[in-house]
Amino acid sequence: MPDEPRDLLEDYELGENRYGKSRIRLVTVRRGPTQHNLRDLTVAVALEGSFDAAHTGGDNAGVIATDTMKNTVYAFARDRLTGSPEAFGLTLARHFAGYDTVGRATVDIAEHAWVRVPTDTGPAPDAFTRAGDLTRLVHVVVDSSRSEEVEAGLDDLTVMKTTKSAFTGFDRDQYTTLPEVDDRLMATKMRVTWGYRRDVPGDSAFDFDAAWERTRAALRNSFAAHFSPSVQASIWIMAGAMMDAELSIDWVRMILPNLHHWRVDLSPFGLDNPGEVFVSTTEPHGLIDATVQRRAPS
Amino acid sequence: MPDEPRDLLEDYELGENRYGKSRIRLVTVRRGPTQHNLRDLTVAVALEGSFDAAHTGGDNAGVIATDTMKNTVYAFARDRLTGSPEAFGLTLARHFAGYDTVGRATVDIAEHAWVRVPTDTGPAPDAFTRAGDLTRLVHVVVDSSRSEEVEAGLDDLTVMKTTKSAFTGFDRDQYTTLPEVDDRLMATKMRVTWGYRRDVPGDSAFDFDAAWERTRAALRNSFAAHFSPSVQASIWIMAGAMMDAELSIDWVRMILPNLHHWRVDLSPFGLDNPGEVFVSTTEPHGLIDATVQRRAPS
Amino acid sequence: MPDEPRDLLEDYELGENRYGKSRIRLVTVRRGPTQHNLRDLTVAVALEGSFDAAHTGGDNAGVIATDTMKNTVYAFARDRLTGSPEAFGLTLARHFAGYDTVGRATVDIAEHAWVRVPTDTGPAPDAFTRAGDLTRLVHVVVDSSRSEEVEAGLDDLTVMKTTKSAFTGFDRDQYTTLPEVDDRLMATKMRVTWGYRRDVPGDSAFDFDAAWERTRAALRNSFAAHFSPSVQASIWIMAGAMMDAELSIDWVRMILPNLHHWRVDLSPFGLDNPGEVFVSTTEPHGLIDATVQRRAPS
Amino acid sequence: MPDEPRDLLEDYELGENRYGKSRIRLVTVRRGPTQHNLRDLTVAVALEGSFDAAHTGGDNAGVIATDTMKNTVYAFARDRLTGSPEAFGLTLARHFAGYDTVGRATVDIAEHAWVRVPTDTGPAPDAFTRAGDLTRLVHVVVDSSRSEEVEAGLDDLTVMKTTKSAFTGFDRDQYTTLPEVDDRLMATKMRVTWGYRRDVPGDSAFDFDAAWERTRAALRNSFAAHFSPSVQASIWIMAGAMMDAELSIDWVRMILPNLHHWRVDLSPFGLDNPGEVFVSTTEPHGLIDATVQRRAPS
Repeated sequence: MPDEPRDLLEDYELGENRYGKSRIRLVTVRRGPTQHNLRDLTVAVALEGSFDAAHTGGDNAGVIATDTMKNTVYAFARDRLTGSPEAFGLTLARHFAGYDTVGRATVDIAEHAWVRVPTDTGPAPDAFTRAGDLTRLVHVVVDSSRSEEVEAGLDDLTVMKTTKSAFTGFDRDQYTTLPEVDDRLMATKMRVTWGYRRDVPGDSAFDFDAAWERTRAALRNSFAAHFSPSVQASIWIMAGAMMDAELSIDWVRMILPNLHHWRVDLSPFGLDNPGEVFVSTTEPHGLIDATVQRRAPS
Repeated sequence: MPDEPRDLLEDYELGENRYGKSRIRLVTVRRGPTQHNLRDLTVAVALEGSFDAAHTGGDNAGVIATDTMKNTVYAFARDRLTGSPEAFGLTLARHFAGYDTVGRATVDIAEHAWVRVPTDTGPAPDAFTRAGDLTRLVHVVVDSSRSEEVEAGLDDLTVMKTTKSAFTGFDRDQYTTLPEVDDRLMATKMRVTWGYRRDVPGDSAFDFDAAWERTRAALRNSFAAHFSPSVQASIWIMAGAMMDAELSIDWVRMILPNLHHWRVDLSPFGLDNPGEVFVSTTEPHGLIDATVQRRAPS
Repeated sequence: MPDEPRDLLEDYELGENRYGKSRIRLVTVRRGPTQHNLRDLTVAVALEGSFDAAHTGGDNAGVIATDTMKNTVYAFARDRLTGSPEAFGLTLARHFAGYDTVGRATVDIAEHAWVRVPTDTGPAPDAFTRAGDLTRLVHVVVDSSRSEEVEAGLDDLTVMKTTKSAFTGFDRDQYTTLPEVDDRLMATKMRVTWGYRRDVPGDSAFDFDAAWERTRAALRNSFAAHFSPSVQASIWIMAGAMMDAELSIDWVRMILPNLHHWRVDLSPFGLDNPGEVFVSTTEPHGLIDATVQRRAPS
Repeated sequence: MPDEPRDLLEDYELGENRYGKSRIRLVTVRRGPTQHNLRDLTVAVALEGSFDAAHTGGDNAGVIATDTMKNTVYAFARDRLTGSPEAFGLTLARHFAGYDTVGRATVDIAEHAWVRVPTDTGPAPDAFTRAGDLTRLVHVVVDSSRSEEVEAGLDDLTVMKTTKSAFTGFDRDQYTTLPEVDDRLMATKMRVTWGYRRDVPGDSAFDFDAAWERTRAALRNSFAAHFSPSVQASIWIMAGAMMDAELSIDWVRMILPNLHHWRVDLSPFGLDNPGEVFVSTTEPHGLIDATVQRRAPS
């Protein structure tokens, strides 16, 4: 019987491991007297803890089935999805961290934005349309010692600056052919996350929705206003603006593809191209990933 | 030499055929004194005509290279992408229909909507964000006898009604288990196209942008307002409303997946679920495809 | 009440329409004494017929629920998915065409290939792996007068010729910059379908599996052997070879993107590039769509 | 000037950061006297190092343009992509680690498998088809102190066991509804990576291709042979088998979605279902992520 798990323990040991349920698709409708409210979340749960016996011994006694995780998300959604997605994530993660075998519970939520359908008589009370630029992210980690972390963010925010972007003065060697450009398009599909101060999760009065809105507004303002000498510098500037605007945030991470737009050479056709006609590309793309953090008070 | 093309002509003949260039990704920036205007199109060109020699004889003399089609789109974008995507499509299709070997030219355009980034000081003059619900479609066909057709539409419009939707009274047989429901969620990702009257393409004063906006507004109003006894009936009602609103349209086609949202049974957990918690699904899905057309005047 | 369906009938009429269930994901396991057999199908059902009342009157009495279609597929899979996917498609389509309100039933099947996991002791009896190049397509249409059509095919077959492909002698005009090339890479992702003779569906002895294998073998042989002066000519040659090999086929349609591979200019780095290093691209791409048909006997 | 980068330095500092080029699509054709050899790689380069000035000061002097990275990959492919993808990754990463500002260079490679088209006269010398189950992964990290790490792996390997899989004895609480099953389908889309011993990268005689093949063979054998009490236990067993087979590997990580296949209840249609008919699903899915490591010698 070469596959007996116990034989392997002499030579191997279990390293980092986690398991859970992903892509739990949850929609809620709250039916008020004058209008409905619609929410649409994709939830993932992941647990770490004392699961060695399941791995190395085939003993599932301490295993919470991922189907049970899914059921729990739907059951909790009945009464407890009433505020921010961060609060719902904390409620779920605290529940899962309470199992004996769980050392750490992580809940990831993507909340997909829907807006009321605009009509001639105003926003519809019970008809909605998906808005493209508003996937809100939540990442909550609760461990069995009740240490809690909350991150928030947004994903899939595709944006473009049509000026105030340059890329000059970079290193040139035998493999460099890129010309310097002092006015280029800068396009990216943003994934931005940020971490709240350690005392925020336990503060039941903290308004995650307002913090998210303030942070997003700062990102928008800064994206539109700043001059970008590089994507790297843009991250630094935008992240700083976000933390200036929202004091509860300790750090901001941005993962920004540089979606190149190449000016088309129209000279073969007897035409100039003063920055008007571009080819939009997706591959290859630059990819800049940086975290900016608030300095500890001295 | 078993692969000599000419041998095959005794037994086989060329049937319907077309060729062209797809996924031409075009971005234009018009740089006005106070603000920029950004447009983002994906263009496809397809030609039909006298291309038998290329197929059956390996003779490319009459073949317009698809690379040339791509070049033409970019060159025309320099000066001629100034109005509606329909007008740009007509300009391109008329050009391609003018080649000796071309009998019919088809141009498809998807225009991806970008909106100005909202900032504290108003919409940004030179920073943009992709809007999710606004892919505008154009389909133009011009043949060498100058017959011209223009279709327009929209794609990827994800919408949901949280009430005023039912499905009852349907056929029941030995394979039917679906219960009747008099209040359900109706969610779909719309692909809607419509055809303009034959005299519209040649009317240089016709305002395709205004027609598109009127038609879209009627779709939104109707989607929000109507009671839906089935997706089939919804198509009939919404298409009628669109043609009521825009007299230049002869027909409307809708291809609507029925993206089922199943009410979660929470009774195992001691909870009721009065239409509040749903599982969102994408497969399997219903798919309803229907065209509604204006009656010819009697 | 502007949304009353009946008002619209004065001005509008229902045109072409169909509805059904898509993305029915079906896996079967047949458990033989020495090994299991695994099949994996995605099925879609679409019905046309007398469904005007559902559209224009909100009357669902003749509507077969798409949920019922799904149930039927699973129920029929219990005992009747024993041979070719074409036979299963015919069985399903004949069933649906038997409803009073149905004029025509269409069943589309994509069968996803799995192969036994190769092991040191031979192919596994009960472990399988998805094979990438073998999505088999079936398209069956049965109408209530019992006219029956069967098409078959394959999808997602990505192939490349590294020589014996050229593109020269094409039209040159003011927008042409493409150089002539007498040796290029030709890469495509094939979608190939073909139609069986009218008497085939009713012939219970016809072996669809063997016909499919013969046709695929001819496609492979021809793809590898022929010299391609253009994608258009390749279609002609390969389609002819397929019909030479399989006499039950009346026509072959190929939709072939031309996935361009551009030779990289390495001269800035002091290197030549004799057709060794290429950039693989997906957009823009050429797209060639042609049908070749067997001539009627004279 | 609120966007001046230097103002931010009082309050914020740059944290972890990296940048590079992703999705570099590289195809090479080596033209031997009797046959061609085709390779198809997607390469990503990422650099870490002294890039603070670019972020916080807008000074690009030390920045290697991502366009230069791309050029380098193509130039190196001319002569230096002759062996394993691991060797190519090491060559690239060592080059990039040699820049003054670079502290660490990471190269990720996905090699997409193509096989010769089978023909009646044997495998084609110059025609190829994509094989679906063979994306080979390489992850190489070289830092400026010449510490080198090599990981390998495979991705997108979709597999299924039709028996010898159970899930029983798991925790049951108020949210548990999943029945115990002693014979179920287990399907997953494997992403498996493993790390080579520290001395392997510097050993020019080490045969990465052979090691990859041995490891993959052990994975296949073990997947087919073992009895699975849970996905967690399967990872433990398969990872152990892989390290038993390949002594140069120190650890194996598997990220395995549990792609549920639900037995269809056919009793409403008067049919039994003895494990023959299943619904294949993709969401929600379980997700198990675990690393198994070789014990240090005592």
